Amino acid sequence: MRLPDTPVAFLGPEGTFTALAASAAAPDRSRLPLTTIPDVVDVVRSGEVQIGVVPIENSIEGAVNLTLDTLAFGDPGVYIRSEITVPITMNLLARPGVELDTLKEVRSHVMAIPQCREWLNTNLPDIHLRTTASTARAAEEAAESDGTIAALGTTMAAERFGLDVLVPDIHDFDGNTTRFVSLGRRMTGPTGADKTSMVIFLGEDRPGLLMQVLDEFASRGINLVKIESRPTKQKLGEYCMFIDAHGHITEARMAEALRSVHRHVDEVKILGSYARADGVEDAKELADSEDAYAGAGLWFRQLLDRIE
Amino acid sequence: MRLPDTPVAFLGPEGTFTALAASAAAPDRSRLPLTTIPDVVDVVRSGEVQIGVVPIENSIEGAVNLTLDTLAFGDPGVYIRSEITVPITMNLLARPGVELDTLKEVRSHVMAIPQCREWLNTNLPDIHLRTTASTARAAEEAAESDGTIAALGTTMAAERFGLDVLVPDIHDFDGNTTRFVSLGRRMTGPTGADKTSMVIFLGEDRPGLLMQVLDEFASRGINLVKIESRPTKQKLGEYCMFIDAHGHITEARMAEALRSVHRHVDEVKILGSYARADGVEDAKELADSEDAYAGAGLWFRQLLDRIE
Amino acid sequence: MRLPDTPVAFLGPEGTFTALAASAAAPDRSRLPLTTIPDVVDVVRSGEVQIGVVPIENSIEGAVNLTLDTLAFGDPGVYIRSEITVPITMNLLARPGVELDTLKEVRSHVMAIPQCREWLNTNLPDIHLRTTASTARAAEEAAESDGTIAALGTTMAAERFGLDVLVPDIHDFDGNTTRFVSLGRRMTGPTGADKTSMVIFLGEDRPGLLMQVLDEFASRGINLVKIESRPTKQKLGEYCMFIDAHGHITEARMAEALRSVHRHVDEVKILGSYARADGVEDAKELADSEDAYAGAGLWFRQLLDRIE
Amino acid sequence: MRLPDTPVAFLGPEGTFTALAASAAAPDRSRLPLTTIPDVVDVVRSGEVQIGVVPIENSIEGAVNLTLDTLAFGDPGVYIRSEITVPITMNLLARPGVELDTLKEVRSHVMAIPQCREWLNTNLPDIHLRTTASTARAAEEAAESDGTIAALGTTMAAERFGLDVLVPDIHDFDGNTTRFVSLGRRMTGPTGADKTSMVIFLGEDRPGLLMQVLDEFASRGINLVKIESRPTKQKLGEYCMFIDAHGHITEARMAEALRSVHRHVDEVKILGSYARADGVEDAKELADSEDAYAGAGLWFRQLLDRIE
Repeated sequence: MRLPDTPVAFLGPEGTFTALAASAAAPDRSRLPLTTIPDVVDVVRSGEVQIGVVPIENSIEGAVNLTLDTLAFGDPGVYIRSEITVPITMNLLARPGVELDTLKEVRSHVMAIPQCREWLNTNLPDIHLRTTASTARAAEEAAESDGTIAALGTTMAAERFGLDVLVPDIHDFDGNTTRFVSLGRRMTGPTGADKTSMVIFLGEDRPGLLMQVLDEFASRGINLVKIESRPTKQKLGEYCMFIDAHGHITEARMAEALRSVHRHVDEVKILGSYARADGVEDAKELADSEDAYAGAGLWFRQLLDRIE
Repeated sequence: MRLPDTPVAFLGPEGTFTALAASAAAPDRSRLPLTTIPDVVDVVRSGEVQIGVVPIENSIEGAVNLTLDTLAFGDPGVYIRSEITVPITMNLLARPGVELDTLKEVRSHVMAIPQCREWLNTNLPDIHLRTTASTARAAEEAAESDGTIAALGTTMAAERFGLDVLVPDIHDFDGNTTRFVSLGRRMTGPTGADKTSMVIFLGEDRPGLLMQVLDEFASRGINLVKIESRPTKQKLGEYCMFIDAHGHITEARMAEALRSVHRHVDEVKILGSYARADGVEDAKELADSEDAYAGAGLWFRQLLDRIE
Repeated sequence: MRLPDTPVAFLGPEGTFTALAASAAAPDRSRLPLTTIPDVVDVVRSGEVQIGVVPIENSIEGAVNLTLDTLAFGDPGVYIRSEITVPITMNLLARPGVELDTLKEVRSHVMAIPQCREWLNTNLPDIHLRTTASTARAAEEAAESDGTIAALGTTMAAERFGLDVLVPDIHDFDGNTTRFVSLGRRMTGPTGADKTSMVIFLGEDRPGLLMQVLDEFASRGINLVKIESRPTKQKLGEYCMFIDAHGHITEARMAEALRSVHRHVDEVKILGSYARADGVEDAKELADSEDAYAGAGLWFRQLLDRIE
Repeated sequence: MRLPDTPVAFLGPEGTFTALAASAAAPDRSRLPLTTIPDVVDVVRSGEVQIGVVPIENSIEGAVNLTLDTLAFGDPGVYIRSEITVPITMNLLARPGVELDTLKEVRSHVMAIPQCREWLNTNLPDIHLRTTASTARAAEEAAESDGTIAALGTTMAAERFGLDVLVPDIHDFDGNTTRFVSLGRRMTGPTGADKTSMVIFLGEDRPGLLMQVLDEFASRGINLVKIESRPTKQKLGEYCMFIDAHGHITEARMAEALRSVHRHVDEVKILGSYARADGVEDAKELADSEDAYAGAGLWFRQLLDRIE
C-alpha cells in the first residue's frame, strides 16, 4: 500500500527560486513553505513530509553553508536524493501601469542587486536601492507600495503578488544557475551518472591528512567537483571538509576510497549519493573500472593459494 | 603630507555585525554604510575611501561567496589588508516596556533565526517567525511596530533604533565567530604571523591538476586553512579554487609555491597577504625555513662552478 | 610421509660466501654447488631439489641483478622463502709457511679487492693484483702456486684448499653484510616480521605511473626498503620495478596495495613473502591496522543498508 | 696551450666489453687497463689521466654497484662526462682448427654463461662449464689450453689471444646492450638531450621522505629513468638513493628540483650531468619550460610591487 503523498516542504516564501525548484522536484505535490532551512530538514527527518527542497549553492535565496551545516552537524537520517538546477533570471517587477521613469526605489535580496548592477547603472543610474530578506519579499513590498517601488525577482513572484514584468531578463550574465537539493530518509541507488556528497571530519589538524584524504579519491580517478574545508565550529582547530565526488557509493572504486578515508579520519558522513542534474556519465580509465577491481581480486586470491 | 582620513565604507546598514567590524577596523573614522558588497569594493578601488569592510565568512550578515566573487572576478586593484573576527552574540530586542508574553512575532535575518532556535523553542514555542534582509532591518521593523514584534540582533542595533535588550545572549552556541576583512589598494608587508588569500583559475578540467596545485603548498609545509573549489561561473566546466594559506608572499617557500602554481594554471590572483587575526606564528620545519632555501641556493651555485 | 631431504643447491664453488649462506640456510643437508644462478633456480623449479641458495645483494660473489632477473623474467613457480645475511670478512690466505714479504701477487674476485684496498696499500703497496672468477677460485690458484701468490677469501676456502690464514679480517670496513635468499616452490606464511619482494612491469612509459605505484604502498604506511626501476630488457622503453616492502601479502593493507597496483600495471609478479632476517616487526599506524580495515568494512556495509 | 693527451684508463683487461667502450669513448688515445674500478677513478681524480671508462650497467664485465659506490662514497672531484652503450654479442672462441665436437669445456664470466644458455643447451648439451674473472680471461685460458677449452667472449679478445671465432653471435637475446661511462674532473655543459646522475643520502629513515624526494622530480615533469634505493653501508638504517633523471642541471626545472631535494635530505651528490647516449630530447610540458619559469618569476616580482 502506497502512502498518500505529503506536500513538498521548502525554504519559503512562495515566489522565490527555491519555490521554483520545489515545484520542479515534485510537480504533483502541494507546497509547504517553511521559514528556515533547519525547519525543512526537521520535517523530513521526522517523517511529516516525504520530500524537502532547500538551496545548496545559490547566491540569491540562501547560502550553501546553512544547508550543508544542518545536514552535516544535525541529527542523521536525512539524505540528499536529487539535485535541481534553476537558471537565474531576474526581472524588474512593478505594479501594473507603472513606468520606468516614475520609479524611485528598487528592492531585492542583497545578492540579487549585484546580479543586475550593469542594467541598473545604465537604465536607472540614480535610483535608490534597498535590500530585503528575499526576492519574494521585495515583490510583496513593491505590491504594497504606491507604485514608485519596483522589485528584482521571479516571474512567479510577479504572478503571486499581482505585479507586471516591467523589464524581463535584466541580469548581467546569462548561464548562471543555482542549485537546490531534494531531501528524503533513504539514499537512492546508482543511475550511472551520479554524485556523492559527504562531509569528512578530519579531527585534530595533522599535517598531510587533508592531502591524503583528497588523494584517496584522486588516485582512483574519482573526480572531485567541490572541495571545501573549514572549521567544524564545534571545537577550535578542528576542520571538516565538504566534498562532492562524481560516482555512486556502490561502485568499487568509490567504495574502496570511502573505506580508506574512513580509516584515517574521525568521521565520514555521507550526505547522499544521487543522480547528477546534468546526467553526464563519468569517463573511467580501464584501471578504475569494475572489471579491473574484479580482476585484481581474482588475481590476489590465486596468489594466496601459492602459500604453503 | 598625509591624506585626510576618509570614512570606512562597509556593507550596511548600521547596527549589524559588519558595522561592529568596521568600527573595530577603523575606530577613529566615520562610517559609510553602502547597500551592496560590490559597492564597498568599488569605492575602495576608485580611491574614494581608503578602507572598506565586508563580511567574508559570516553566516549572519552576508555570504562569503559574494565578497570572494567580487574580489576574484571583478577588476583588480583591491586587496585584503586585515581580518577582523567578531563573536556572534544574539539578543532579543524589543520596544521599551515590552514583555515576553505579549510578543506575537520575532524577526531576523534567515541565518540568525537558526542560531537561536533552541532558545526560541523553549521560551517562545508558538511565536511567529519572519525573515528580514538583515538583523538591523529586523530591529528597525521592531521599533516601528506596535510592540508585539521583537528582533534578534546586536546591542548596537538596539541602541540605534531605541530598543531594549529584552533577553541577552540567546544564541545556542558560544564560541561562534564571524570573519570580516578590511580592503585597500596596496598589500601589507609581513608580520611573522600572516595569511595569504588567493583564487586560482584552473582553466579546463585537467585530471590531477587540482591535486598538483594543492601539493605545491603541502610539499613545502604550507598549511592550507581554507580550500574551496567551484565553477568560475564564467565558462561551463571551468573551475577555480579559493585558498587561504598560512604565511606571507615574501617568504621563500610561499614565493616558490606561488611561482610553481603560476606555471600550471590559467591565472593566480592574490587577494591579499595580511596579518592573521589570531596572531599565531606558523611552526616551520627546518627544510622549509628561509635558511634552508638560502643554503640550497648557495650549494647549487657552487655546483654550477664544476661545469667546464 | 615426509619426502627424503634433497641437497641444498647453491651458486658454487665451495668455499665462497654463498656456500656459507647455503650452510646456514640448511645445516643438515648436503650441498650441491652449481655453475650459474639460473642452474640453481632450474633445479628448484623442476623439483630436483627442495631448497636453493643464491646471492641477492652481494658485491663479492655475484650480482643481485642476475638472481632478480632469473626470478623475474624466467618461468614462474619459484619463490623466495627466506633471506640469509652473512658478514663480509676478508682474510689473506696463502700456502702454509709463506711470509708476507715473499708474496708477489694477490688474487681475488674483482669486487673483493677494493674491500681490502686500504690494508693492501699500507702493507703490500707494490704487490701485483689479479682478478679471478670467485674468491674460492683465487684460493685454489694460491694453493696451486709456488707460494708467491696469496688470495683474499673466506676461512672456509682456506680449509678447503689447505691454505693458512696469513692475516685475518683485512677488509676495510666492519659491519658490511651480504644478503642471500633461499628458494622453494611455495611461499611461506606470515610471521609478523615479514618482507615481500616483487617485480612490477609498468608497461609502456606513462608519466606519473611510477609515482602512482609507489604511492599505493606509501599511502598505506607500507615501508619500501628497496626500490629499483630499470628497463625490462625485453622491449625498448619498457620499465619494470623491483620492490622489497615490509609486511606479508596476507595483511589487509598489503593485499589492498597489491590489488591496486595490479589494476594499473601490465603485471605484478610476487617473488616471495617471507620472514625478515632481522626479525623486526613493523610499527603500524592505527589507520593501517587490521582492525581499521575491518572497521571500515563494517561501516561501509551499514551505509549500503541506507539505500532504498 | 693544450695539454698532451693522456691514455684512457679503463677496467681491464684488454679484450673485454669495457675495452670496447674505452676505445669508442676515446678512439685516438692509447689505452691503460687497470685492475679495479676504484683504480680507474683514482687516476682520474689525481689528474694522472684525463679520461677513465668503467662499466655502470653491465651484467657481463662488472657490476653497476661498485662503480656507483666508488663515485658516491669516495672522495669528490670525479664526474661522469658521457655514457657509452655497447651491444652484447657473444661468440664461441677457440684455438684455430678446433671443431665443436672435440670441445670438452667452455669458460666465461659467470654472467656471460647464462646469456648463451639456450645455444649451449642445444649445441653442446653435455659440455663442462667453468667461470672466470672476465670474458677476456676465459679467452686467455682457451688460448693456453690444448684446444679442448673454448671461451665465450668478444671478437676483440679473439684477435688479442689468437683465437678463431668458432661460432659468432651465440647469445640468446638480441637488443641487449650494456652501459659504460667516461669519467673526468669537470662536468659537461648542456646539449639539449642530457641526463643527470646523482646519489641522495636520505639520512635517518623518515616516513614519506623517499616519496617527497621522488615527487620533487615528478611534479616538475622530470622523467626518472633509474631509481635505486639501498642502505648506505655506512650506518645501519641509513638509506641512499641513486637516481638518473632526464635533463641537465642548468635547466630551470632541474635546478629547482635539486635545490628542493637539498633542503630535505642529508646530502645530494651530483655524479654528472651529461649527454644521453641515445640523443633523444625530452618532451616538456609548457608548464615545465624555461619560458614558464621565466614568466612565473616576472609575475611574482610584479606582485611584490603591490606591497606598500
